Amino acid sequence: MPVGTQATVKGLTPDELGALGTQILLCNTYHLYLRPGVSIVEEAGGLHRFMRWSGPILTDSGGFQVLSLTPLRKVTDEGVIFRSHLDGSEHFFTPEKVVDLQERLGPDIAMVLDECPPYPASREEIEKAVKRTSAWAERSRKAWRRKEVTFFGIVQGGVYRDLREKSAEELVALDFPGYAIGGLSVGEPKELTYAVLDWVVPLLPPDKPRYLMGVGTPEDILEGVARGIDMFDCVLPTRLGRHATAFTRRGRINIRRAAYARDFGPLEEGCQCYTCRHYTRAYLHHLFRAEEMLGPRLLTLHNLHFLFRLMERIREAIASGTFHHLYETWLQERGG
Amino acid sequence: MPVGTQATVKGLTPDELGALGTQILLCNTYHLYLRPGVSIVEEAGGLHRFMRWSGPILTDSGGFQVLSLTPLRKVTDEGVIFRSHLDGSEHFFTPEKVVDLQERLGPDIAMVLDECPPYPASREEIEKAVKRTSAWAERSRKAWRRKEVTFFGIVQGGVYRDLREKSAEELVALDFPGYAIGGLSVGEPKELTYAVLDWVVPLLPPDKPRYLMGVGTPEDILEGVARGIDMFDCVLPTRLGRHATAFTRRGRINIRRAAYARDFGPLEEGCQCYTCRHYTRAYLHHLFRAEEMLGPRLLTLHNLHFLFRLMERIREAIASGTFHHLYETWLQERGG
Ligand SMILES: [Zn+2]
Ligand SMILES: [Zn+2]
Repeated sequence: MPVGTQATVKGLTPDELGALGTQILLCNTYHLYLRPGVSIVEEAGGLHRFMRWSGPILTDSGGFQVLSLTPLRKVTDEGVIFRSHLDGSEHFFTPEKVVDLQERLGPDIAMVLDECPPYPASREEIEKAVKRTSAWAERSRKAWRRKEVTFFGIVQGGVYRDLREKSAEELVALDFPGYAIGGLSVGEPKELTYAVLDWVVPLLPPDKPRYLMGVGTPEDILEGVARGIDMFDCVLPTRLGRHATAFTRRGRINIRRAAYARDFGPLEEGCQCYTCRHYTRAYLHHLFRAEEMLGPRLLTLHNLHFLFRLMERIREAIASGTFHHLYETWLQERGG
Repeated sequence: MPVGTQATVKGLTPDELGALGTQILLCNTYHLYLRPGVSIVEEAGGLHRFMRWSGPILTDSGGFQVLSLTPLRKVTDEGVIFRSHLDGSEHFFTPEKVVDLQERLGPDIAMVLDECPPYPASREEIEKAVKRTSAWAERSRKAWRRKEVTFFGIVQGGVYRDLREKSAEELVALDFPGYAIGGLSVGEPKELTYAVLDWVVPLLPPDKPRYLMGVGTPEDILEGVARGIDMFDCVLPTRLGRHATAFTRRGRINIRRAAYARDFGPLEEGCQCYTCRHYTRAYLHHLFRAEEMLGPRLLTLHNLHFLFRLMERIREAIASGTFHHLYETWLQERGG
């Protein structure tokens, strides 16, 4: 899922996202709540009509942004008090309010409010967060009215196996239509990320979608799929693209590097994206050096194409029973 | 002509420019000379291939930028010494060098080096600039080698009728394939701009294109066409678009204004541009408030569409002998 924080995937039109093969977009409740405000999106007829994207949309609960972006926050059992990072105004999110806000935004999939502590956190902090996350999930389940919006539960538990298991079991007992694994990709070593997946995924219902939040490098996606994950979101392809970094089969390259000033080949040989079919590395290098907006736009297109092509190959490989082969060769090539 | 200073019309692809009906693009020799450098564009196979725009391109001489953007410049009869606005390095442009640079960039139309004094300037300064502009035009004419690149002469003379006439006569005597009128739109009152056109245009050969440099509001275009101008360039539609301002039949609007936060109509009722067919003012307002790149891109599309549609109507009106009617109604509507 590409990330469209503020009801736009930076620099791209929905038509371009559709042409790239985007299946679902992520928008951030926290950002939209502050600007333009939920009532404006509601008046526009919901997020799909407001941003003119007719495909599926997932909104997050805002919990992660509140706990990572805002100053002077206070978490109680009731909810979270925080100040806007834009104007310092004070706001209060409860599980019920977050359900209501998302039902009014009108996405296809929404997330319940969870507590995602920073990494590293003590066992006591994580224990408390798990307890609160379960209690909030239960309150969210009760507050959920609009059945067109599908709410997912979120498993927390840090890097503590028993707490992850406890969280998963309590969430599964609430019978959500899908589950997200939160609290990962927050700075912990990769081995721990993968270990948590190994612990949690087997406890989730096999017939319901599993969404790994905040993960999106090609390698993480392969590791996640290998462990049973169905959905990923990540700002990386778009954020890296805006900062002159392109995914390639041999790893990331930064197009601002002087070496590309006279490189008249495409970003990646054989890539069929719009950018690679039309532009040279030398031209892209020039656009970034000259701080021209077309540069971020073209690199974002390439990076999303790159990831979607990977997802496509993963789906084909799973269908034909060759996923393990794809996984091995991909990681080997990247070793170079 | 939309302006693509650094070999890109800010935020748009050449495909989008083509779809809008762009007939010719302007690129700035001064900017390209500094970055990426003429040799890189040359190696790429020229500007068309470098930026992937197969339609016509016009490059300016760089004279205007050198005299308006750079610190520590010195103009002599030989040429202009200036410092780069990017890194302070010292450079020297002569009429011959400017011809050579443009022949290597490979546009379809190029401009000779002229001296364009700021406004206001004394009669003595303008007199000197006219003399130098003629001498430089003659040297440029001699230096011109590649016949695929068509060089235009530039008429100077400030707001002094006799100097404008002198400049026009001297340039016409050099028999260029086209003529530009420079030194306007530099701060003088509109009445003087139009008066200069009234003096100069009748002196130019009727069968050669006439290009009014740096002009591009809808009203100026109508006034220019009424006085016999064929070509215009201007950064306005793109620059205004980036700064949240849209052209409409009733004048400019700034989409950041609070009044548009809940306005679910298009930028302009009836406009057939991509932006107006797909987006509301409320959404565009949100994009600009949230500082999202898609905002400048969508307003630029609308503004260029607006101007191209005006040019189309002008051409139709001229063909059917109704230009005067179009001119009158347009200016009347804007009066409101
Ligand atoms: Zn590509
Ligand atoms: Zn429009």
